[in-house]
Amino acid sequence: MVTTTYQVQGMTCGHCVSSVSAEVSAIKGVSDVRVDLATGQVTVTSESPLDIEIVRAAVDEAGYDLVGA
Amino acid sequence: MVTTTYQVQGMTCGHCVSSVSAEVSAIKGVSDVRVDLATGQVTVTSESPLDIEIVRAAVDEAGYDLVGA
Repeated sequence: MVTTTYQVQGMTCGHCVSSVSAEVSAIKGVSDVRVDLATGQVTVTSESPLDIEIVRAAVDEAGYDLVGA
Repeated sequence: MVTTTYQVQGMTCGHCVSSVSAEVSAIKGVSDVRVDLATGQVTVTSESPLDIEIVRAAVDEAGYDLVGA
């Protein structure tokens, strides 16, 4: 298992958290997603390292931006 | 038809707008709901004047607060 923390920009409320969680959780191999609204940190547990572009696409699909990386 | 504008506090994103719109639209007699996220103004068109407590309950159900009134 691998745990990686990403920084997401633009989440303002619990609905935003739900949207990001749902999209990132749908990535193949992801077993857990924790979102901290206050900091914008999204911590993802997966069975193997994730392709950053796949994560970026999921966050984008939810309507937000992955910062850096 | 009656059009009334209410002030709602706490909406931060489009999801919040959707939640408030959905709850207020479900009030009997309401035919149109317009939400301005930037100002928090919710403009409601109904066939007769609405009971403010019914509107307050709908906004509360969505997770936000009706200001004043």
